[in-house]
Amino acid sequence: MPTFLKSAAAAIAIAASALSLSAQQARRAPQVESPVVNPDGTVTFNYRNDSASDVKVDVQFAGRHDMKRDENGVWTVTLGPAQPDMYPYCFIVDGISVMDPLNPDWFPNEGFKNSIVDIRGSEPLIHSARNVPHGSVDYVTYWSQTLGLFANAIVYTPAGYDANRDRHYPVFYLISGTTDTEEVYFKVGRVNFILDNLIADGLAKEMIVVLPYGNPSKYYPAGTDLRGKGDLFSEDLVNDLMPFVEKNYRTINDRDHRAIGGFSRGGNQALSNGLRNLDKFSWLCSYSSFTTMDLPAYDDPDINSLLHLFWLGVGTDDFLYADAKDYMDFLDSKGIKNIKVFTDDKFGHTWMNAKYFLDQSLRLLFQ
Amino acid sequence: MPTFLKSAAAAIAIAASALSLSAQQARRAPQVESPVVNPDGTVTFNYRNDSASDVKVDVQFAGRHDMKRDENGVWTVTLGPAQPDMYPYCFIVDGISVMDPLNPDWFPNEGFKNSIVDIRGSEPLIHSARNVPHGSVDYVTYWSQTLGLFANAIVYTPAGYDANRDRHYPVFYLISGTTDTEEVYFKVGRVNFILDNLIADGLAKEMIVVLPYGNPSKYYPAGTDLRGKGDLFSEDLVNDLMPFVEKNYRTINDRDHRAIGGFSRGGNQALSNGLRNLDKFSWLCSYSSFTTMDLPAYDDPDINSLLHLFWLGVGTDDFLYADAKDYMDFLDSKGIKNIKVFTDDKFGHTWMNAKYFLDQSLRLLFQ
Repeated sequence: MPTFLKSAAAAIAIAASALSLSAQQARRAPQVESPVVNPDGTVTFNYRNDSASDVKVDVQFAGRHDMKRDENGVWTVTLGPAQPDMYPYCFIVDGISVMDPLNPDWFPNEGFKNSIVDIRGSEPLIHSARNVPHGSVDYVTYWSQTLGLFANAIVYTPAGYDANRDRHYPVFYLISGTTDTEEVYFKVGRVNFILDNLIADGLAKEMIVVLPYGNPSKYYPAGTDLRGKGDLFSEDLVNDLMPFVEKNYRTINDRDHRAIGGFSRGGNQALSNGLRNLDKFSWLCSYSSFTTMDLPAYDDPDINSLLHLFWLGVGTDDFLYADAKDYMDFLDSKGIKNIKVFTDDKFGHTWMNAKYFLDQSLRLLFQ
Repeated sequence: MPTFLKSAAAAIAIAASALSLSAQQARRAPQVESPVVNPDGTVTFNYRNDSASDVKVDVQFAGRHDMKRDENGVWTVTLGPAQPDMYPYCFIVDGISVMDPLNPDWFPNEGFKNSIVDIRGSEPLIHSARNVPHGSVDYVTYWSQTLGLFANAIVYTPAGYDANRDRHYPVFYLISGTTDTEEVYFKVGRVNFILDNLIADGLAKEMIVVLPYGNPSKYYPAGTDLRGKGDLFSEDLVNDLMPFVEKNYRTINDRDHRAIGGFSRGGNQALSNGLRNLDKFSWLCSYSSFTTMDLPAYDDPDINSLLHLFWLGVGTDDFLYADAKDYMDFLDSKGIKNIKVFTDDKFGHTWMNAKYFLDQSLRLLFQ
């Protein structure tokens, strides 16, 4: 049965091609990879497109740059060097923004579609997967009575959680920004590796981290009338997600062992939920946040004893910097103790800064 | 301080806009949503692009169709009705394939970039999040001595796993296809919800499912010389991932309680690893697979007593159908017992069929 054997051999060859470079070398078309992080810290972006007339790359360490078509028909440009970090980028193909089709690392988002280039450098970074005990990241599905549906969240448990069956842990609710999904503090913010590293180095307490989905109105079909439904996020958080977490994970269930924080819109949700629920939370973190000054807590005479931490970080280049400064002045004018951290780089309202703020503030939680 | 109060009010309004339709209604530009699943099972795709001259949608239930620009400048088309299921699709904008920027549900992949439209229908489907106990999906990081790096995998544990601390479970290694990442059997294959539903209905055994990453050569920087490194996937699976799973999860560690299966290239990896390691596996599932006939196991006189299940599924419309039939004939000619399942629809080599095969075969594992 020659036909039979031939087709089998072809199938084996195709299956093997993903696994061996010797098979790849037999391909006639030149192999294209993208992005390529070069030893000098520059990054080469490659994109094959035979019909486009204009291709640019827009990358958060360098801005927007033209790509040029090489002799193989591949659009290419080398940019940088850049400081080791994870940078979002996209290609702009005849005006249309697209992910890098050759890169499986993307930025989970409901609006823009960016890929991520990971410049690792020679030394491990705070978000690198170092050779330390690693926690687990659980994608969970919980019934939300508030929303009337099964909702998504992600829960980080530290290394040793399964082995130490009688231990209970403090818990940090950590909320992503506008148009982000619940995955962003994992896939882009790398809270798991940051915390693995800090715990291994004795710089942070072991804790559980919960990543809620910040925009539950998007669970509903387009056109659903949600008027009169109230603040879906906050009601779900307090009445559904927190009880789910406390039932299914070994959390310490008192205000001294609950923190809440977030980035951008998520920072606003953290501030408002934390300050409206001082019976539940005592550690607050605001990262590059939209702020809110219309809450009774600011006039609570006990607020300084109720809050173990009120941590605020913002980049001086952030479009929210002026607002953040006003808010810090407001807190100071009220005599509310807070910690202010600024980054002084060009990475204003980005996840490069969000990771830095997370690293810095995780060191203080529950200490 | 009027400026100060104004900026605060603006910030609150922006933050609130994501949460309330009343704020959305104040926006001047018409709200665009995509995709919109209509009550009759048709789907409306919308895409805003003022500079494109030609926009199409390519969706796996209907193929490729032109979109038309409406009076608001939104490219739109309504297709279907389609049978309730999850369908990959992309927009083709002046010849360039892009994800739907308004849809956060995507197909994790190293090559193409597709979004997913979820047509839920009026009755729950086998992959729906029903009101049953839900298992947990853990993203894990393990040290791979074979690869010399920390590798990724995903582990499903069934509902009750944490509560039943002395129970041990059988384990199913389940591998995605070419250019898929380890996430595909979770995000597209929905193995978690399928198994939650089958277990709740008493139709499947409780088990742990491990989703390896099928293409570990992609872990290395472009240009890394991997010649002479052997079969990285198989060596990592047996020497690194399996020991990690067996150390960190309560698996039953004998051949009677280990299954292996996969889709397309992953099915090939499942067949070859299962049949080369009959001391480790006794349940085999091949879903729309590339096949392999060059293994000593086919001539093992004990193979029928060693294998508790040899399950093969393929669509009659699959480009691998002829190969699969040849392979089935080959097994029959060797007297190797197997179960053959065919789908007779237009969804040949797709994840609509992959989910069906998973559902059917999970009912038989470890029974």
